[in-house]
Amino acid sequence: MDEPVFHNLLQTVQADRSQGASQLARRSLQLMAQSAQRAPADTTGELLKLLVSRCDRLIAARPSMAPIANLLGEWKAGLTRLDMSSLPEIRTSATDNALMLIRQSEQALQETVENAVAYIGSDKTLITHSLSSTVLQVLLSVAKRNIRVIVSESRPLNEGHQLARRLAEAGIPTQLITDAQLGLFVPKAGLALLGADSLLSDGSLVNKAGSYLLALAAHDNGVPVCVCCESFKRRKQTEEPAALEEMDAAELHAPSLSGVRVRNIYFDITPARLIDCWIDERGVHAACT
Amino acid sequence: MDEPVFHNLLQTVQADRSQGASQLARRSLQLMAQSAQRAPADTTGELLKLLVSRCDRLIAARPSMAPIANLLGEWKAGLTRLDMSSLPEIRTSATDNALMLIRQSEQALQETVENAVAYIGSDKTLITHSLSSTVLQVLLSVAKRNIRVIVSESRPLNEGHQLARRLAEAGIPTQLITDAQLGLFVPKAGLALLGADSLLSDGSLVNKAGSYLLALAAHDNGVPVCVCCESFKRRKQTEEPAALEEMDAAELHAPSLSGVRVRNIYFDITPARLIDCWIDERGVHAACT
Repeated sequence: MDEPVFHNLLQTVQADRSQGASQLARRSLQLMAQSAQRAPADTTGELLKLLVSRCDRLIAARPSMAPIANLLGEWKAGLTRLDMSSLPEIRTSATDNALMLIRQSEQALQETVENAVAYIGSDKTLITHSLSSTVLQVLLSVAKRNIRVIVSESRPLNEGHQLARRLAEAGIPTQLITDAQLGLFVPKAGLALLGADSLLSDGSLVNKAGSYLLALAAHDNGVPVCVCCESFKRRKQTEEPAALEEMDAAELHAPSLSGVRVRNIYFDITPARLIDCWIDERGVHAACT
Repeated sequence: MDEPVFHNLLQTVQADRSQGASQLARRSLQLMAQSAQRAPADTTGELLKLLVSRCDRLIAARPSMAPIANLLGEWKAGLTRLDMSSLPEIRTSATDNALMLIRQSEQALQETVENAVAYIGSDKTLITHSLSSTVLQVLLSVAKRNIRVIVSESRPLNEGHQLARRLAEAGIPTQLITDAQLGLFVPKAGLALLGADSLLSDGSLVNKAGSYLLALAAHDNGVPVCVCCESFKRRKQTEEPAALEEMDAAELHAPSLSGVRVRNIYFDITPARLIDCWIDERGVHAACT
């Protein structure tokens, strides 16, 4: 995979609004596996330098998404153990490491979903915000258990429409609301279930803008707030503060008004004090420490 | 004004999404003044019965809007003092009463705006939700005082766009955000300023859905929440609980999905405990009792 091809694929990762952080982390590992196999290099030093650089560029492309930093960081750490190997050995080992991390990520996701399904039980109304592939898997797994779901549209791109469609197709009675109605509908729910783009080291949640508002309203109404994500989404204490990415203002489809600055920050931070439990591949935790 | 004409005008009041509760209350008083002048009736009893009935229909048309109930209720009470008068006397007095109440309402609005302007002072960033004509008047009055405003789009019909345009035209630096970003932007503001569709007797606020979320986020960030409306918007303790009107689901422009119920409740209730001050024609109050 030469530089122009990698650059194009990096840009698709950067621009992707439909896949979640874990999916994009696995996609990034695939790009690194392909780079390890086929990136042009004549020496081991040249190859390792190129792989580290591509790794860092992928991590920088989506700074709000901890799984990319975590999984690629782990892969990059593996490279340093290969510097005495031959060029073909590095290509093989680095590729294998990337594929192994993809499998680990998939398994952690699967176990997280199973833990969430067990926790939810049956006969409940759930409320959620944004489209999390993890939350979608959880909800589809409890479809036959007398579950009802309230879904917010999730402006600006209305991923909630897609979530509502998938839930309704699975036979789950679904209500679709504006984000502004989250406070009105949260008292009708028994649980607020959120996915995560990442978790800060204290358990605070970085997720689609509006998650903080849902958590505030749930907390104010005594409705438990539950975050469901693999431990790969946890940011390390030593990392920089989470950067909250701002996207193209045109996504709001607001009229172009002279003197008005349209803002489109994608993520907000829900403080850990508003979260009642965290579910990951290891179980259900009342504190995220 | 005969029945078909009145019926059509009643429907325009019912369907109106652009004017606030006080404006629609004054519009309703105009309809009652015109009915008093020209409604077909042969006896005083017939006229009074007709006017009371039209009054009640207007009140029922917008149950979330206290000023309509309050101002029309006051006008209706005045009718009972006219039952010994002649038909022409009733027509004249009832018309005059309606016009006097319109003037009282306008004056209360003007004094409320003046009190809010004095309270805000200068050099501040304000955040607001929805389009309140009172809040708009306040903001235009402080345009030259180094004021910046953050405006939410206010789904489903995006009245925030109109507010942003008016503010920018007045030279006020304005940022426009999705409702979902209210929690992200509230820490950048020194004051959250809200209008009201009505106030409950304990000071709780009935306003466009999303107001409760803004108040929660402001409260959580130590940003004062200020509600600005004339005392005509206060519901009486004896009244029924506020009905929260639901509008046409088509306003959300969601795809039509079998099995998905689209909800469009227009108003939410912000508990008085989240409100720091109430401004009306009498002054600025730290408690609404």
